[in-house]
Amino acid sequence: MTNKIFMALTFIGVPLSVIGTVMHWPSIILFVLYCLTIIALSSFMGRATESLAIVAGPRIGGLLNATFGNAVELIISVFALKAGLVGVVLASLTGSVLGNLLLVAGLSFFIGGLKFKRQEFNVFDARHNSGLLIFAVMIAFVIPEVFSMNMNETKTITLSIGISVILIFLYLAALFFKLVTHRGVYQPSGETEGHEEEEPEWGKRKAIAVLFIATIAVAYISEHLVHTFEYVAESFGWTELFIGVIIVAIVGNAAEHASAVLMAYKNKMDVAVEIAVGSTLQVAMFVLPVLVLISLFFDQTMPLLFSWQELIAMISSVLLMVVISNDGETNWFEGLTLLAAYIIMGIGFFLL
Amino acid sequence: MTNKIFMALTFIGVPLSVIGTVMHWPSIILFVLYCLTIIALSSFMGRATESLAIVAGPRIGGLLNATFGNAVELIISVFALKAGLVGVVLASLTGSVLGNLLLVAGLSFFIGGLKFKRQEFNVFDARHNSGLLIFAVMIAFVIPEVFSMNMNETKTITLSIGISVILIFLYLAALFFKLVTHRGVYQPSGETEGHEEEEPEWGKRKAIAVLFIATIAVAYISEHLVHTFEYVAESFGWTELFIGVIIVAIVGNAAEHASAVLMAYKNKMDVAVEIAVGSTLQVAMFVLPVLVLISLFFDQTMPLLFSWQELIAMISSVLLMVVISNDGETNWFEGLTLLAAYIIMGIGFFLL
Amino acid sequence: MTNKIFMALTFIGVPLSVIGTVMHWPSIILFVLYCLTIIALSSFMGRATESLAIVAGPRIGGLLNATFGNAVELIISVFALKAGLVGVVLASLTGSVLGNLLLVAGLSFFIGGLKFKRQEFNVFDARHNSGLLIFAVMIAFVIPEVFSMNMNETKTITLSIGISVILIFLYLAALFFKLVTHRGVYQPSGETEGHEEEEPEWGKRKAIAVLFIATIAVAYISEHLVHTFEYVAESFGWTELFIGVIIVAIVGNAAEHASAVLMAYKNKMDVAVEIAVGSTLQVAMFVLPVLVLISLFFDQTMPLLFSWQELIAMISSVLLMVVISNDGETNWFEGLTLLAAYIIMGIGFFLL
Repeated sequence: MTNKIFMALTFIGVPLSVIGTVMHWPSIILFVLYCLTIIALSSFMGRATESLAIVAGPRIGGLLNATFGNAVELIISVFALKAGLVGVVLASLTGSVLGNLLLVAGLSFFIGGLKFKRQEFNVFDARHNSGLLIFAVMIAFVIPEVFSMNMNETKTITLSIGISVILIFLYLAALFFKLVTHRGVYQPSGETEGHEEEEPEWGKRKAIAVLFIATIAVAYISEHLVHTFEYVAESFGWTELFIGVIIVAIVGNAAEHASAVLMAYKNKMDVAVEIAVGSTLQVAMFVLPVLVLISLFFDQTMPLLFSWQELIAMISSVLLMVVISNDGETNWFEGLTLLAAYIIMGIGFFLL
Repeated sequence: MTNKIFMALTFIGVPLSVIGTVMHWPSIILFVLYCLTIIALSSFMGRATESLAIVAGPRIGGLLNATFGNAVELIISVFALKAGLVGVVLASLTGSVLGNLLLVAGLSFFIGGLKFKRQEFNVFDARHNSGLLIFAVMIAFVIPEVFSMNMNETKTITLSIGISVILIFLYLAALFFKLVTHRGVYQPSGETEGHEEEEPEWGKRKAIAVLFIATIAVAYISEHLVHTFEYVAESFGWTELFIGVIIVAIVGNAAEHASAVLMAYKNKMDVAVEIAVGSTLQVAMFVLPVLVLISLFFDQTMPLLFSWQELIAMISSVLLMVVISNDGETNWFEGLTLLAAYIIMGIGFFLL
Repeated sequence: MTNKIFMALTFIGVPLSVIGTVMHWPSIILFVLYCLTIIALSSFMGRATESLAIVAGPRIGGLLNATFGNAVELIISVFALKAGLVGVVLASLTGSVLGNLLLVAGLSFFIGGLKFKRQEFNVFDARHNSGLLIFAVMIAFVIPEVFSMNMNETKTITLSIGISVILIFLYLAALFFKLVTHRGVYQPSGETEGHEEEEPEWGKRKAIAVLFIATIAVAYISEHLVHTFEYVAESFGWTELFIGVIIVAIVGNAAEHASAVLMAYKNKMDVAVEIAVGSTLQVAMFVLPVLVLISLFFDQTMPLLFSWQELIAMISSVLLMVVISNDGETNWFEGLTLLAAYIIMGIGFFLL
């Protein structure tokens, strides 16, 4: 049912986006059109990824999900950086962190919790993720913020580059740890990884083809999407910050939203958490530092410097998530708590 | 023995308070008289609540304890708000949070720990409470503080109202979770709730009658108490902040202090923790937002904005409590650590 | 092998230091000479301590290690205070906290983790330490920082003295708790403390004699070391902050570095963690407050006031350590995460 809607949206949205772009339709209409089309395309990417994930197993599956969810993010951000919208990029990455930690995980825990009284996931993974969340946000984001107060711009950029390189290095080391040296080491005792056989929706080839085509379409649309921001901000009375933190983040993460909630509803909390938290970590430890390094080739360099509001919002969210997830168990109320935190931050950024 | 002292204090204190108020005795004398009388009345409310708690079981009992301990708080605060003392109200709520988390819990853990080597309480409740503490303080209190730096007053009030509504909603949802959907779900395995039969001191009717009458007396005295603050501050060289954070908070929470320590001494740590942390949560998630909403009808609206010192003191206390309580176990040294933290903050607010 | 190098270094370094000091050699040469000699002397102190530790058992052994590692710290700091270098002392204590939590523990976890897939240590000790870390850094260091913003200098000193007394008191209480009232209470069930018999390198007498002589030599050299800082800072273009946080801290903690890593490599994680975290706690809860009190007798009083960068760096490190160590387990990746955090902070302080 929803699949048909998204298919229709895609097959109408993509050509309309091209036509509208060429014919210079009003920005508001284009903005809505682009957003809906990207969401529809993300849904295809999500289904393709899920098919691949079934073949590849829960952990790699989660990584795949996170990767292609954040491909949309990365693509939009590169075009926004090229257009000089450094503030919007940082805002949308903040929004992505908040959205994944609070909205995606919150919805998953809440909706999964309505069906199941207690849902469990791998407590070792939860702790591993907690350490990385604290590292990325409390160390790698906080240090430049506090140290740059007494630094000139050159030193701030140097510090940003250094931290970005370390983040990427540690992200790759984490993959190596998870997939090579400690693969299967942290399985809860007594649990066999024999999940019931599930039929992938698409074959491997078809899934990859869909992913490839959808990615190109997203890239094309993203390039034009970022140029509509300033008109939209003006028309709706929104700040660019709000567009970045809430709108772009929701559009860019639609795929994760859908598939994480679906997994939670099927009681596959390992995958749901991997999507939500794994995606957060990928944004913080990979997408963001890569964008910092890419920005060196553009006119305007992006330092690793969030606004205080963005930074504090991320710190609070991370601490909440760490405390809630560290026991490897969820219920509807924990989901609701995360959602309540998201709404509070949404109001905050809207009013800012 | 202490019961008799408190009874004497009440039967002397209440009439003296009325007479002193009518005859305009010196403010210092009235302040001391009011405080002692409220503490004595709180003790009656505490005993009545304990009687009801025995009938109602440990969890509802704890909630009852917290509710009526904070009734005193709420009553004093409403009259202080009416008198325009917004700063004193925020200070006394801060003091209530610090007092419950550090002083009440600290004394309970310490004194209980002198008798028992290791005391245990429900680890699931501890984690549930940790999540809510982080939510209330790190999200609901921190966000307006940081976001209002770049906001005008109207927006700050709007944000305060929005967050207050969400806090109250989540507090009610937490009650629904605890008492309805997940009642008894998180009992530690193997533990039966068959606590030894205990005889309530008073019957249900007498307990309710005592609660009712004492509450009215507290309300009457509180109304006059708040008007003595400025004279007392002047005479003793205290700041209003110190009166709010330390004095009002101790007076307002005397009931919790007494009953939590008593429970710890009887090795009923579940109840002791429920009183200390549950009371904190009620102040933060119910009393405070209700006061924000009530203040809309008064001359001076109270935004959800603490001073930086108040906010940081609460954040530090919450983090300390989360780390100490998250294993569901206490000993005398953990109690001493909490008390040491309270003394440090007491010195800080005294010198401020 | 390394023992022979250190022995040579000592027997060449000590006389050369005396001669160089008397003959006023260039400051840079003296600085390098002093540093190397102190490191070599620390290695002797480390071996002597390890010998004593084998006799005394793992816990007292860890305490001994930390004590004499920090003796070097304390000695250098007293002479730096006497020379009026308050900022350098605070910086070097910050560096000691960061160095122990991130570098010593990080190296131990990483190198131990290369040999063993999962290394365990006493989870009760880990939680006990977590509580104290939060107390020391988030309460005792944060409160004066935030409260002194609205205080004059006299009050700041008063607050610093009060907090210092409380810190020392709680540190002694923690020793009493660990060694008297709760000795052996928190052994993981089923674990007997029967570690395989190990032969101490030196006898008790020889070990104590080495400790005594090395301590005197370190004191002599430290007194002259601190006077070279300003020349070195000028020559290398380093800030005094960087010298304090990174260089002095590494020199002062060389003993801990060596013995903690050695213990981790032997899979004695209890001792390795005790050295790293125990040493941090000793610096924060004993060395620092003692220095505050000692400074009252010097010309310039040292308040308990770090720079914001120092404070935030310590807070971040503590939170990272708490989250990583709270499960009582380590692996190479957790070690790498700590090391990455150390490098980020090193870059930050270097650029500051």
